[in-house]
Amino acid sequence: MRRINIGLLGCGTVGRGFVDLLARERERIRGRDGVDIAVRRILVRDAGKSRPGIDPALFSTSAIDIIDDGCDIIVELVGGIHSAGAFVRRALANGRHVVTANKALLAEAGRELFATAERNHVRIGFEASVCGGIPIIRALRHGLAGDRIESISGILNGTCNYILTRMEQDDLEFDDALRLAQERGFAEADPSLDVGGDDAAQKLRILGELAFGPQVVRMRVHGIADVTRAEVEQARARRGVVRHVATARRAAGGVEMRVERRELPEFHPLAAVRDENNAIVVRGRAVGEMMFQGKGAGSLPTAAAVLSDVIEIASEPNRTRVLT
Amino acid sequence: MRRINIGLLGCGTVGRGFVDLLARERERIRGRDGVDIAVRRILVRDAGKSRPGIDPALFSTSAIDIIDDGCDIIVELVGGIHSAGAFVRRALANGRHVVTANKALLAEAGRELFATAERNHVRIGFEASVCGGIPIIRALRHGLAGDRIESISGILNGTCNYILTRMEQDDLEFDDALRLAQERGFAEADPSLDVGGDDAAQKLRILGELAFGPQVVRMRVHGIADVTRAEVEQARARRGVVRHVATARRAAGGVEMRVERRELPEFHPLAAVRDENNAIVVRGRAVGEMMFQGKGAGSLPTAAAVLSDVIEIASEPNRTRVLT
Repeated sequence: MRRINIGLLGCGTVGRGFVDLLARERERIRGRDGVDIAVRRILVRDAGKSRPGIDPALFSTSAIDIIDDGCDIIVELVGGIHSAGAFVRRALANGRHVVTANKALLAEAGRELFATAERNHVRIGFEASVCGGIPIIRALRHGLAGDRIESISGILNGTCNYILTRMEQDDLEFDDALRLAQERGFAEADPSLDVGGDDAAQKLRILGELAFGPQVVRMRVHGIADVTRAEVEQARARRGVVRHVATARRAAGGVEMRVERRELPEFHPLAAVRDENNAIVVRGRAVGEMMFQGKGAGSLPTAAAVLSDVIEIASEPNRTRVLT
Repeated sequence: MRRINIGLLGCGTVGRGFVDLLARERERIRGRDGVDIAVRRILVRDAGKSRPGIDPALFSTSAIDIIDDGCDIIVELVGGIHSAGAFVRRALANGRHVVTANKALLAEAGRELFATAERNHVRIGFEASVCGGIPIIRALRHGLAGDRIESISGILNGTCNYILTRMEQDDLEFDDALRLAQERGFAEADPSLDVGGDDAAQKLRILGELAFGPQVVRMRVHGIADVTRAEVEQARARRGVVRHVATARRAAGGVEMRVERRELPEFHPLAAVRDENNAIVVRGRAVGEMMFQGKGAGSLPTAAAVLSDVIEIASEPNRTRVLT
């Protein structure tokens, strides 16, 4: 059986989830896909920190050592743009496939990285970069390849949706709902990336570029920090709900993107999306409206998306087409 | 640019949709995927019948002539089991890739056909066989490959769902709702395959086998022909809805499948699926619950799924792994 060695960069929430999920699913994948996937090295900040269940011999504090170690696939889960970008570029230049969950990096430098991958005959898997476990990248790339996409709109940020759902169902003001989200682990201590709309905008940019190409003719980003309980109540009185909706649509000369709160009628498909869930509605000329819904974040759902890319690359390492 | 020639078997609703969709999307696919896909021959029953917009020189009444003509991909859209099965076997034995929407054939003989494809180093695309344009086959095969699937349940038959929705919203008895479905083109003159549950069972079998393997330890199929208006009203009084639900779940020794009507609480994800739509809820150990929803049938949605398989095979003709 072919052995595929993984160099894992980052052992935070998703990295740890990936190690655990692979340990659990490795035998099943050997049986089903005929490849034996093993983590050979793990980049950590502090190699002395105890991480139960992981062999400490795998840890290294040198990304370069890991990237240059001859692994088949580099899984980048450090996040951020600068170091992560340098690591991914070096891995691609070394002829290594890369799997990443890094939406900020792809929103910023995706085209350059995909071009580098193509030149080096390797692939970049990025299913985990948008909406965690929901296989929306594959759907846009392959499943809906026969159709012309007209628009994509979705609830791409689980933190915002959790806050809006709590305001709606528990009659809370924004600040109280945010505090609840922080207590339950659905919002960061500094929630500005989520509630300000930039997180959703990064994901929208990746989806919009896949569907409509790179030319953004308009991009407007609004958050939800000024939503009031009164606004949510007024929407309810009109049999509607307030949702944070990201939309990309074809426009003259390219693609137009908007991230904003909207009042949706209660029968709108996105109105039924509650709590920390994500959903994406894709409208195609032939297929009509199609919706994908599920957990958009979290350690294991995101790790499952990373692993799906690893499996796809591992089972067909000689494919030369990059995933995008 | 590489030219990929299609031998199309069948020019009914979906076949005609495929020809029209390809005509519309051919340039886009050339630009995006770098392949030029062309229909070279079309099997029809009556070559003299006028079909506006299609060159009559493409028509043939001999399936063998078309299959042996050296096309790259045979698209089988004749339906049924016997002739279609013979055509597909011959195409695979000739070393041709096959794309099919034929759920009855795959539910009956899928494993044998996939084994034949594997032996002949060709692939079978069957995204269109289950739920039209919804890319559920790819999701189970690739997108969720990193996870262990626990259960699949869905509304797999749009005719049944249309009838139940009309009974619920228009206070109709079954017979009146069925008549309405027939008038609107959502039900056949002989609706027994749909309302009896066998159509949903065939689709469920394909999904269940993909997720859990071939060993069916229990299979129960009930239809909706005896649903009464009173039953629908009682469900509503309890804030529920009646839906025709197909479920496959892991069981000791294999997979257990059920197709039956169920009363769902109004907050159940499948309760919001209305009219002729289809939806599938996949529960994975890591990803939790994920839902895919859209038009499950119809000429263009199904043709779009066929075309997505054709594009995937056309852009990577040297991949040796079959799609399943």
